[in-house]
Amino acid sequence: MTTAGARQPQAGAGQLLELIRTGQAGTRAELVRLSGFARSTVAQRIEALLRAGLIVSTGGADSTGGRPAETFAFNRTAGVLLGADIGGSHTRIAVTDLGGEVLAEDEADLDVADGPKRVLGWVRRRFTRLLRHVGREPADVHGLGVGVPGPVESGTGRLVSPPIMPDWDGVVVPGWFAGDYAAPVVVDRDVNIMALGELRAGGHDATDMVVVKVGIGLGCGLITGGRIYRGAQGAAGDLGHLHRGGDEPCRCGQTGCLEATAAGWAIRRRLNQHGYEVNTSADIVRLARSGDHRTVRLIRQAGRLIGESLADVVGLFNPAIIVVGGNLAGAREPLLAGIREVVYRRSQLLASRDLRIVPSTLGHRAGTIGAAMLVHDHLYDPHRVSTALA
Amino acid sequence: MTTAGARQPQAGAGQLLELIRTGQAGTRAELVRLSGFARSTVAQRIEALLRAGLIVSTGGADSTGGRPAETFAFNRTAGVLLGADIGGSHTRIAVTDLGGEVLAEDEADLDVADGPKRVLGWVRRRFTRLLRHVGREPADVHGLGVGVPGPVESGTGRLVSPPIMPDWDGVVVPGWFAGDYAAPVVVDRDVNIMALGELRAGGHDATDMVVVKVGIGLGCGLITGGRIYRGAQGAAGDLGHLHRGGDEPCRCGQTGCLEATAAGWAIRRRLNQHGYEVNTSADIVRLARSGDHRTVRLIRQAGRLIGESLADVVGLFNPAIIVVGGNLAGAREPLLAGIREVVYRRSQLLASRDLRIVPSTLGHRAGTIGAAMLVHDHLYDPHRVSTALA
Repeated sequence: MTTAGARQPQAGAGQLLELIRTGQAGTRAELVRLSGFARSTVAQRIEALLRAGLIVSTGGADSTGGRPAETFAFNRTAGVLLGADIGGSHTRIAVTDLGGEVLAEDEADLDVADGPKRVLGWVRRRFTRLLRHVGREPADVHGLGVGVPGPVESGTGRLVSPPIMPDWDGVVVPGWFAGDYAAPVVVDRDVNIMALGELRAGGHDATDMVVVKVGIGLGCGLITGGRIYRGAQGAAGDLGHLHRGGDEPCRCGQTGCLEATAAGWAIRRRLNQHGYEVNTSADIVRLARSGDHRTVRLIRQAGRLIGESLADVVGLFNPAIIVVGGNLAGAREPLLAGIREVVYRRSQLLASRDLRIVPSTLGHRAGTIGAAMLVHDHLYDPHRVSTALA
Repeated sequence: MTTAGARQPQAGAGQLLELIRTGQAGTRAELVRLSGFARSTVAQRIEALLRAGLIVSTGGADSTGGRPAETFAFNRTAGVLLGADIGGSHTRIAVTDLGGEVLAEDEADLDVADGPKRVLGWVRRRFTRLLRHVGREPADVHGLGVGVPGPVESGTGRLVSPPIMPDWDGVVVPGWFAGDYAAPVVVDRDVNIMALGELRAGGHDATDMVVVKVGIGLGCGLITGGRIYRGAQGAAGDLGHLHRGGDEPCRCGQTGCLEATAAGWAIRRRLNQHGYEVNTSADIVRLARSGDHRTVRLIRQAGRLIGESLADVVGLFNPAIIVVGGNLAGAREPLLAGIREVVYRRSQLLASRDLRIVPSTLGHRAGTIGAAMLVHDHLYDPHRVSTALA
């Protein structure tokens, strides 16, 4: 951040990188025109960005005559990003280039309740293996993004009283990676990284989105004006614990929460009561895909209950699109049909006329791509770039 | 807006005005340091801003020695803004300085269902009178902000199928003022201007706010990250028509909406069924303040019902503060107590621990001040200023 008294010799370098990175400008003349900076300022900042390896010169551009102008491009192969999507019962990781393109990935069934040592230990070991696999060194890692299924203190990456992961309370996630990488680690809720992934790489063409994660747990990420909306304490999007009435006990300690009747853990409990042997959301999806009537009925009913709360979300937030992801979204039609049925019936015309309700396009990768984009946004924040080069 | 190919001789003038207007910078040296612009660029833009009358030179600043540096300030008395807050049954207007300080105001009971001719006719006539009263000419008006109790197409200021004001469908509000003032007219929903007023002038010290308007109708304005959040079609904040169950018919044509049991019109209907003679929210507030048991009970119960929906808002949106305004907020304790009782009981700890639920600090003025701030933000948008001076 800029402080009022500080000198900033590279002020504006971050804005120029943004113009180059997003394809808005490639030549010095375009950078001068779009930034409003002096020609000499642009020249100095370009030098600093080239020296830092953040951009490369790609030679002459198409020109209408005379000497072709030199063009610059974002150097997305200068390093890699690491993304981890830690879910309640399953964890996925990926190595991406600096633009968020997945180069290699891995996953495992890990119960987050087993604690940080087991889960983050696995993540650390497998990151090392994946890096070797793509021929990169720890020094090539520019940043790590991590999603966790609980509330995170922004800035520090510390878990704050996470209801379903008691052993993680107070854990500062970045500290676990400090010995492995000399790179920033950014941490956010799992639903937020998933929403960021769908926003950036999902091809949905919307800036006001709700991304619902239906797995063993239930939550949503809110995107407003093209940014993650976290709320005052980072607790926004707590869809699973909206009060829906009834006296079904919830795992949070209250009764009548949406999760208590519509989350994967509630469906699992119901199926096991009827003699099934179900452990993971994958088990539930398998049953649904095999056409098991009871499972299909339970998922469709969960979709309807989720739809009731999403109708409220539509009335309050008026999103352009609702993206349905998470492991139970693998059951597709019964879940989506239940949600659509209720949302379209309950919502006011203006808010629902153009509303799209669609499955996740990134599927299982939404979280890891989003985690990489989270640290990407941190690294290439215009202020941060300017300050880092100053 | 900047287009990729356009030359912008005054690019950056808007950012400099912003630094001056918000008190971040006063001297040329501060402007150079905080903007990152070249000294010559800052000098040219300062000239243009002085010529346009947007800033004034206020003489030398305190200095550590030598000739004191010239300082610049926003010229808030260079003109006036007009703000109109058109409610369902009551309309208020104000003349403010360019910073949004109220200079004169007026109000009347006007039923919005009487149509645009009657309501906007009154607004136009009274604006003329108020301007004379403060010794200003129509040419001094730099902009008009208008709030209306229905959905507005952003950009054009056209009403779109407003449920409670059928005669207004398709009405382009700015057109009604085109003959009076050669100044921009910006239109938004009544709940949004109220929220903007509380954000800027309410002294709440929060950037994530929910501002509830409880009057004859019921709705809320959402502030996220210090900006009005409108949603994809401008329909966000439709609190009154969240589905709460039951079969009470709502004035929107559906059944079971929150409004049908908790809005002023529902309380009025109930009181009149019991032989009271109640027309406006002022009548209801008068009864409550006189200690009429039935009225107090109905308002407290409305507060509880509104609280149920606000608990959902808290879970989804995690605001730092809920501000309760609108005419029925004049009943104070019974309404606030009902809301607080349910919100704090129903909300998860993390989202409610630091949540404040407070009455509006601007009271009846929240809407008109917010309307003035709406056009203020439009006029002094950095891009717009730069383009206007170019």
